[in-house]
Amino acid sequence: MTTLRVAMIGHGFMGSAHSVGWRQAPRMFSLPADVEMAVVVGRKPEAAAAAAEQWGWQESASDWREVIARDDIDIVDVVTPGDSHAEIAIAALKAGKHVLCEKPLANSVAEAEAMAQAAAAATGVRAMVGFTYRRVPAVTFLRDLIAEGVVGEIQQVRAAYRQDWLVDPEMPLAWRLQKEHAGSGALGDIGAHAIDTTQFVTGLAVSAVSGTIETIVKQRPLLGEGSGLSGTAADGYGEVTVDDVAIFTGRLANGALVSFEATRFATGRKNQLTIEVSGTKGALAFDLEDLNSLQFYDRTAPADRQGFTKILVTEGVHPYVSAWWPAGHMLGYEHGFSHQVKDLIEGIVDGTDPHGTFAEGLAVQRVLEAVEVSSGRESAWVSIPGATPK
Amino acid sequence: MTTLRVAMIGHGFMGSAHSVGWRQAPRMFSLPADVEMAVVVGRKPEAAAAAAEQWGWQESASDWREVIARDDIDIVDVVTPGDSHAEIAIAALKAGKHVLCEKPLANSVAEAEAMAQAAAAATGVRAMVGFTYRRVPAVTFLRDLIAEGVVGEIQQVRAAYRQDWLVDPEMPLAWRLQKEHAGSGALGDIGAHAIDTTQFVTGLAVSAVSGTIETIVKQRPLLGEGSGLSGTAADGYGEVTVDDVAIFTGRLANGALVSFEATRFATGRKNQLTIEVSGTKGALAFDLEDLNSLQFYDRTAPADRQGFTKILVTEGVHPYVSAWWPAGHMLGYEHGFSHQVKDLIEGIVDGTDPHGTFAEGLAVQRVLEAVEVSSGRESAWVSIPGATPK
Amino acid sequence: MTTLRVAMIGHGFMGSAHSVGWRQAPRMFSLPADVEMAVVVGRKPEAAAAAAEQWGWQESASDWREVIARDDIDIVDVVTPGDSHAEIAIAALKAGKHVLCEKPLANSVAEAEAMAQAAAAATGVRAMVGFTYRRVPAVTFLRDLIAEGVVGEIQQVRAAYRQDWLVDPEMPLAWRLQKEHAGSGALGDIGAHAIDTTQFVTGLAVSAVSGTIETIVKQRPLLGEGSGLSGTAADGYGEVTVDDVAIFTGRLANGALVSFEATRFATGRKNQLTIEVSGTKGALAFDLEDLNSLQFYDRTAPADRQGFTKILVTEGVHPYVSAWWPAGHMLGYEHGFSHQVKDLIEGIVDGTDPHGTFAEGLAVQRVLEAVEVSSGRESAWVSIPGATPK
Amino acid sequence: MTTLRVAMIGHGFMGSAHSVGWRQAPRMFSLPADVEMAVVVGRKPEAAAAAAEQWGWQESASDWREVIARDDIDIVDVVTPGDSHAEIAIAALKAGKHVLCEKPLANSVAEAEAMAQAAAAATGVRAMVGFTYRRVPAVTFLRDLIAEGVVGEIQQVRAAYRQDWLVDPEMPLAWRLQKEHAGSGALGDIGAHAIDTTQFVTGLAVSAVSGTIETIVKQRPLLGEGSGLSGTAADGYGEVTVDDVAIFTGRLANGALVSFEATRFATGRKNQLTIEVSGTKGALAFDLEDLNSLQFYDRTAPADRQGFTKILVTEGVHPYVSAWWPAGHMLGYEHGFSHQVKDLIEGIVDGTDPHGTFAEGLAVQRVLEAVEVSSGRESAWVSIPGATPK
Repeated sequence: MTTLRVAMIGHGFMGSAHSVGWRQAPRMFSLPADVEMAVVVGRKPEAAAAAAEQWGWQESASDWREVIARDDIDIVDVVTPGDSHAEIAIAALKAGKHVLCEKPLANSVAEAEAMAQAAAAATGVRAMVGFTYRRVPAVTFLRDLIAEGVVGEIQQVRAAYRQDWLVDPEMPLAWRLQKEHAGSGALGDIGAHAIDTTQFVTGLAVSAVSGTIETIVKQRPLLGEGSGLSGTAADGYGEVTVDDVAIFTGRLANGALVSFEATRFATGRKNQLTIEVSGTKGALAFDLEDLNSLQFYDRTAPADRQGFTKILVTEGVHPYVSAWWPAGHMLGYEHGFSHQVKDLIEGIVDGTDPHGTFAEGLAVQRVLEAVEVSSGRESAWVSIPGATPK
Repeated sequence: MTTLRVAMIGHGFMGSAHSVGWRQAPRMFSLPADVEMAVVVGRKPEAAAAAAEQWGWQESASDWREVIARDDIDIVDVVTPGDSHAEIAIAALKAGKHVLCEKPLANSVAEAEAMAQAAAAATGVRAMVGFTYRRVPAVTFLRDLIAEGVVGEIQQVRAAYRQDWLVDPEMPLAWRLQKEHAGSGALGDIGAHAIDTTQFVTGLAVSAVSGTIETIVKQRPLLGEGSGLSGTAADGYGEVTVDDVAIFTGRLANGALVSFEATRFATGRKNQLTIEVSGTKGALAFDLEDLNSLQFYDRTAPADRQGFTKILVTEGVHPYVSAWWPAGHMLGYEHGFSHQVKDLIEGIVDGTDPHGTFAEGLAVQRVLEAVEVSSGRESAWVSIPGATPK
Repeated sequence: MTTLRVAMIGHGFMGSAHSVGWRQAPRMFSLPADVEMAVVVGRKPEAAAAAAEQWGWQESASDWREVIARDDIDIVDVVTPGDSHAEIAIAALKAGKHVLCEKPLANSVAEAEAMAQAAAAATGVRAMVGFTYRRVPAVTFLRDLIAEGVVGEIQQVRAAYRQDWLVDPEMPLAWRLQKEHAGSGALGDIGAHAIDTTQFVTGLAVSAVSGTIETIVKQRPLLGEGSGLSGTAADGYGEVTVDDVAIFTGRLANGALVSFEATRFATGRKNQLTIEVSGTKGALAFDLEDLNSLQFYDRTAPADRQGFTKILVTEGVHPYVSAWWPAGHMLGYEHGFSHQVKDLIEGIVDGTDPHGTFAEGLAVQRVLEAVEVSSGRESAWVSIPGATPK
Repeated sequence: MTTLRVAMIGHGFMGSAHSVGWRQAPRMFSLPADVEMAVVVGRKPEAAAAAAEQWGWQESASDWREVIARDDIDIVDVVTPGDSHAEIAIAALKAGKHVLCEKPLANSVAEAEAMAQAAAAATGVRAMVGFTYRRVPAVTFLRDLIAEGVVGEIQQVRAAYRQDWLVDPEMPLAWRLQKEHAGSGALGDIGAHAIDTTQFVTGLAVSAVSGTIETIVKQRPLLGEGSGLSGTAADGYGEVTVDDVAIFTGRLANGALVSFEATRFATGRKNQLTIEVSGTKGALAFDLEDLNSLQFYDRTAPADRQGFTKILVTEGVHPYVSAWWPAGHMLGYEHGFSHQVKDLIEGIVDGTDPHGTFAEGLAVQRVLEAVEVSSGRESAWVSIPGATPK
């Protein structure tokens, strides 16, 4: 059996989650290749060494270009902030490495296009974007049920991603709230998941959008020079330059409307990605705060016993679940990272692209940009060129 | 104690619900006046007589003008279709009668303006529009808690009214789906409740909107000449000329955004009016399909025990409840009609307008019209002139 | 159409609920007879007159024997405390009146036996005990689904009735907490509902029980001479002489075990009657605090989409519902009282006994007594003579 | 920093779950010692070697006595079936090893007593029983809140563990259904968790029990000679010799009653451990099928806003959570195994016993035995000698 050696570039929160995926997947699944956690890369050598020690990478390094150039590296996992995704991922693809790139694919459509082109041009290597929620078993199963036809023709979708960590106006300014670093706010960070999940489960592209993005708290306290923020403010407050909330309507390739919302001001909602797909035969609904279950309404059932069925997606017959625990045993957030690794490794061995392609990452980026354009045009509808069913 | 005699104009589904209110309120509440269900009015004498017999009205009549002119009638309750509301209500007000008018106040802004002016001009009589959901105890309590300040400054609202009775494309055409009769579709029928509930509980006017209305199934089977529909179609199908779904964003007087949705295509959702108000100190959420409870998130609670509290609004300390049953005993849809009667009778005796004024009904009508205008302008934002906090 | 005139004996909380039933049923259902609320009876003339005025009875009286003797009374509705049920109901039956008797049928097995015998002996009249929860639509539908076979062979049942109004040890002593007045505590008051609901929905008798009853707070503050309590205590505290909680196991006629619990100490549970019936093909679960819905698990569904379906029992196809409101409109606690009236009137006209017979009331009483006997015998199993499937 | 080397005896389902704990805990928590997964032991060398390879143990072995005797082993983790727990754990303790023993501690009280004595006699080593559900964050937090006094005096408890994997009568016989192998059925397998969780969170011992255990399906199909079962049956069916369901009532050391249920026949309930603790000041409720949340009812809150608060136990302020993911990110079943490792390692370094002592395991065993005795005595109450508050 071949051995695939991984280099992970970056080691923040996502580095921790990806490390769990690399560590767990080979233990829980029967993968068609051996996987080695070879090297973790960070600009500061001591921090990278500490990350390697903590998460079990064989070694650490500080120059990602050197690592990408190494012959003993097969896979490059990019978990840096979005502004460096394009440079690293394209370089890795050109060096003949398989690439897993954390979402969002990039901070702009231009970068994402270059990445998608690089992925298309790189023969024999796989490129995957890490929309991990696709591989929550209930979400994968939702997609499978739609593909099987249980909702019939899709007539309406409702998708939202709601958090509340910015409700307090005295929460300090951070780099995530500055456009030059983060690119976007709630829209790009969590709205991207709502868009991708919609396109993934319906199999339909968002072809146009109309919407509004807005910054609710426009100034926040500065924490001082050491905060890593751009600029300073004499009065101790700095400008928030990304959106806090995005509310928009999308149109799918089949004509159905989608109501979207992404917000960091939904008091009490901690990490609530929700989607409900309504069709002629039924409906399916998912809530990330209850991630082991899926709600299914079957309009073809006898009239007196229709209702939303809460399916615990924890049985051996459900996607990915048989590798884990017996019936009714809950999975958590990080399991998606193992599933992502499993599918990537299988794709590499099979020579097929696992879903979450760079083209799909680009499609999300185009929708995000269109929302910003629409918001700047009094929320008028904006078409997304080239949007076609997946 | 004075006696107030009621004439009800119309006797469809709403006539049944209003009759329950008139029958129950005097039994369950200690009202400051005696109430008599005097006369029910319908164009067809036999049908009106049957309604009187079934629902307990003392007599029936077929000419509403004659009834309004009678000296022994104190209150006129208008439950006809929306296109006759203005004519009847204005005539009744001019005749010195108190008026309860079912929502929507009218089918157009012009009519609603005339009604609001008539109400303002009519001294000594009360005019009330029947947005009954305001008087579901959990909704009234939601309003009270916001007024008390438990959510702090309102930063975002999410309101929807979702039904599914049009999902089947073979559901026949009905007068409710023709613009000349119904005025509007999901927008005016149920979207009006979402708008009114938002304005009622927040105490803030919707000052601008951006949105889209759409007809998903554009032709439906005709049931033949006897259906009461306008026009006929050679091929057995007729045009649906009202909207099936409305998705729009509103801005409140304090600047907060509201995501609105009204749809008859939410498969599996039978009658689901939902609202969630998010603020700096907390959040409140209500769902009409679980109408005895209210969800409250308190950000001022200790950090480790915050969460949504499901308050059963069935205790004697809650609005209207002490008149009914002991702790934990559920109320239903029609109780709001009794509460409406109670507040109207008390307002008549006190000489004060109960909430749900004609001015408030007009405000809803203006928002509805603005949504239609926005939809016709590529969803661009449209301001609502005169919209100010209640 | 014949007219049936009703006399209601007693006018406490249950009098109010029964009055709603008598007032509403003829309006909402097409009954085969006219119903008149003729006379309400209470020992104190002024109180009875006030009750008549408030709830719409034509007249009031203070001597139930005189009223029962009247020729213009067809139905006697007994809503007095349990210790007078037997005397009144038997007298009424002997006088040839139809009888509706509030639950529990009596305070002892001996009384209940006499009542059941009187009912059996009274030809041409109907006798019905008011286990109202049987006629919550979701409970009736639960029974229907079991009868249809959707759960297969019943293998286990879990039933409980949980309230919390005695949690506070300083809640004063009341007549409901004294055995000479109330007969029993949580066991007879709410445990009786859990037993009856179990027998009703499964169609199986409880044939043996093993259990424990207990008084958690043994002394409570006295409110003084005017409290209507037996005895007085020098120190201002009186003895609680009924049970606060009853936990027992039952065996059904088919051998299945039932776990029962009745308690007034379940902090936060206001009025929560729950039942879950588990069988070879499926399961059904009901919760009175969510009374418009029913949970159904179908083991015959495809393995990957099994789960509990939350059926909103608010559609026209469900029992009793078509008389009320459109799809998805909630019903409340008191609707069961109207359904009870409907079934009684139909039974009177048809000459058939509506369910909730005195024999069924007696069966519940026997189970209650057996629980007390078991508790006194270290919880050892006690058989219920004569218990056979309904 | 010292290094602790682990030997795991056994490698079934629990071996997999424990391996995840050993692998993950050192990565996610800052442990005070290094941990090495040294050797996994199984009777069949090839199977043990495969387990070592799959789960990442350095080596495998087939003789647990040899492994226990090795100087380079510090911790012995026992995950064999219950009938060998006593022999292995006692030998390991005598050899001076720290011991983690999967629940139930043993198959009998006698064995458990010997183990508890061995643990008490073994100075300088830690002994821990693996009641993993104690370390689900919501359960630990439930215990903490009770200790803090939020429910006041505990007046009643309701605990159950419900599964449904035996509902089908044609499910074949397995060793888990034979007494000589499994010791007990639902009672010992899952009832043990209900008992331990009750004692753990309340801090009160179960001092007496009354109950019934029963086998619902008494014969099941045999799968043939290769099934590893005792005996054979000519007709292809074998006897089920353990209980399918156990329903019992317990009394806590403070006098409060507990209703217990353990069943494998609760159709549709996959793995539902539930507990509700009711007290004078509040209540707390937990459901393992929704393991990231805890329900809290606060009777000291204002009367009009009391209700069950659904706390998402996924915040950094909650037990164990800060080591994992940001706010609102769900954990799963296996996280408890990492938490168990963390606490054991800290206990070893600190020289203190982590909770889940062998004495606590023995206490559970005594309750289990008392339930069996009670069931054999017509369910009469049986005291548990020596049961005192923890």
